Amino acid sequence: MKFRRSGRLVDMTNYLLHHPHELVPLTYFSEKYLSAKSSISEDLAIIKDTFEQHGIGTLLTVPGAAGGVKFIPQVSNEEAKLFIEELVDLIAKSDRLLPGGYLYLTDILGSPSIVNRIGRLFATVFKDRKIDVVMTVATKGIPLAYAVASQLDVPVVIVRKDSKVTEGPTVSINYVSGSSKRIQTMLLAKRSLNEGSNVLIIDDFMKAGGTINGMIGLLEEFRANVAGIGVLVESEGVEERLVDEYISLVKLTDVDVREKEIHVKEGTYFHFMKEKETKLGVEE
Amino acid sequence: MKFRRSGRLVDMTNYLLHHPHELVPLTYFSEKYLSAKSSISEDLAIIKDTFEQHGIGTLLTVPGAAGGVKFIPQVSNEEAKLFIEELVDLIAKSDRLLPGGYLYLTDILGSPSIVNRIGRLFATVFKDRKIDVVMTVATKGIPLAYAVASQLDVPVVIVRKDSKVTEGPTVSINYVSGSSKRIQTMLLAKRSLNEGSNVLIIDDFMKAGGTINGMIGLLEEFRANVAGIGVLVESEGVEERLVDEYISLVKLTDVDVREKEIHVKEGTYFHFMKEKETKLGVEE
Repeated sequence: MKFRRSGRLVDMTNYLLHHPHELVPLTYFSEKYLSAKSSISEDLAIIKDTFEQHGIGTLLTVPGAAGGVKFIPQVSNEEAKLFIEELVDLIAKSDRLLPGGYLYLTDILGSPSIVNRIGRLFATVFKDRKIDVVMTVATKGIPLAYAVASQLDVPVVIVRKDSKVTEGPTVSINYVSGSSKRIQTMLLAKRSLNEGSNVLIIDDFMKAGGTINGMIGLLEEFRANVAGIGVLVESEGVEERLVDEYISLVKLTDVDVREKEIHVKEGTYFHFMKEKETKLGVEE
Repeated sequence: MKFRRSGRLVDMTNYLLHHPHELVPLTYFSEKYLSAKSSISEDLAIIKDTFEQHGIGTLLTVPGAAGGVKFIPQVSNEEAKLFIEELVDLIAKSDRLLPGGYLYLTDILGSPSIVNRIGRLFATVFKDRKIDVVMTVATKGIPLAYAVASQLDVPVVIVRKDSKVTEGPTVSINYVSGSSKRIQTMLLAKRSLNEGSNVLIIDDFMKAGGTINGMIGLLEEFRANVAGIGVLVESEGVEERLVDEYISLVKLTDVDVREKEIHVKEGTYFHFMKEKETKLGVEE
């Protein structure tokens, strides 16, 4: 049975979307559809054009015998802008204020469609880094970490603050919570991370950065490297930030618990995207 | 600017895959691509055929002014069979055995591609139920819950066993852990679930079913309904099962800690799929 172009385009689109950052040999498609490689190449050119035109991502072609095609998910800056504005409006609602100046984010983090869009943004900003694994700390960062990891085609490891979970031997460290200055413990199953791994840290909320700093310390114990840090919301006005380079989508500039007002603005995402563009410009 | 069929097929496929179980009016596509509804209908017929042929799912067409098209993700029985066999082999590896007869599943649950495929299976088996929200308990069930919820286009709520998390007022219940017979507490943020919601419970592991039974009790407090229960692994040889109807992908029949042997077989998934087919046959 031969496959017509229209059917191939639909099935190839589905396949590529489900296998981001994975090198797919052209023979995979030509054998699956019993079609010449030249037809497959034409199909891929159509898909690439459409993906780029609609802000879905792009296709990279790797030439040669070990070559193939790779789908790189990529959100356009316009789409990112609109989405981050949406997030800012969502988060600025005053009924999110909880005692202690914390924010209720459960509804946002509970929406797979929002979470998946956040994942696509982080996958865009970190797409050129070498990343072997995404790390987060239980529990609120978990959905975000999976959303990013899905788009980067890497596994997730979850750091825990309690040792009740059955995962075998663990490595633990003590760290100082940045805001409360209390000493806390976090741990990670020994089997879950290889030495030398390049690790992207993802979390939902960062104040002084104590928790993220703890994860960095844990990575040192595993002789693993920090490949990047991404947080959904960062809180400004922190005396001493424990973490230097990170990317945030949204920034809390001021939380007035008495007046029940939350001031929210865009995070550092576009700052970093611009830096990337400039760097690319220099390299050319 | 007009869009050619090939480009439309690629972009529509992307759109539908990202909006499962959502009714999309035909005008959405005809306006986006400046194309006649008749052309869009032809495109959708091609997509539907391809989706069904390749086991991606199907498109439902709802006629009339308020109508449109809905993508229903659906794994074919053959693909489900192969995948469950893969899971059985993965889980049967003896180095997964942890003290106490527990299993190390962290690598499986840490792989977004495996987790997403598990999500598609549960979305297939529960596709005809009325589901408003997916519920799980922190922390191992979380990625599975999001994978299912993504495919069903509903939010996730996460039950916790500690109250350290800042989510505002909570409702808590005590429950008896089925295996250890100890009394434990679980709680859920009051804001996170509406009265009358139809809730699909998803978890990674079920022994006697105490935790899931606890979630059912919590749902009663919220006057919400159990729409279904799905677990990745169930453990057989339990004296008294606290939960009746559930769907498992994999069943542990015997764990021999001394001999380091794990016996694993297919869960109840196909039993349920067959029941569904029979029921459908009767209705026709």
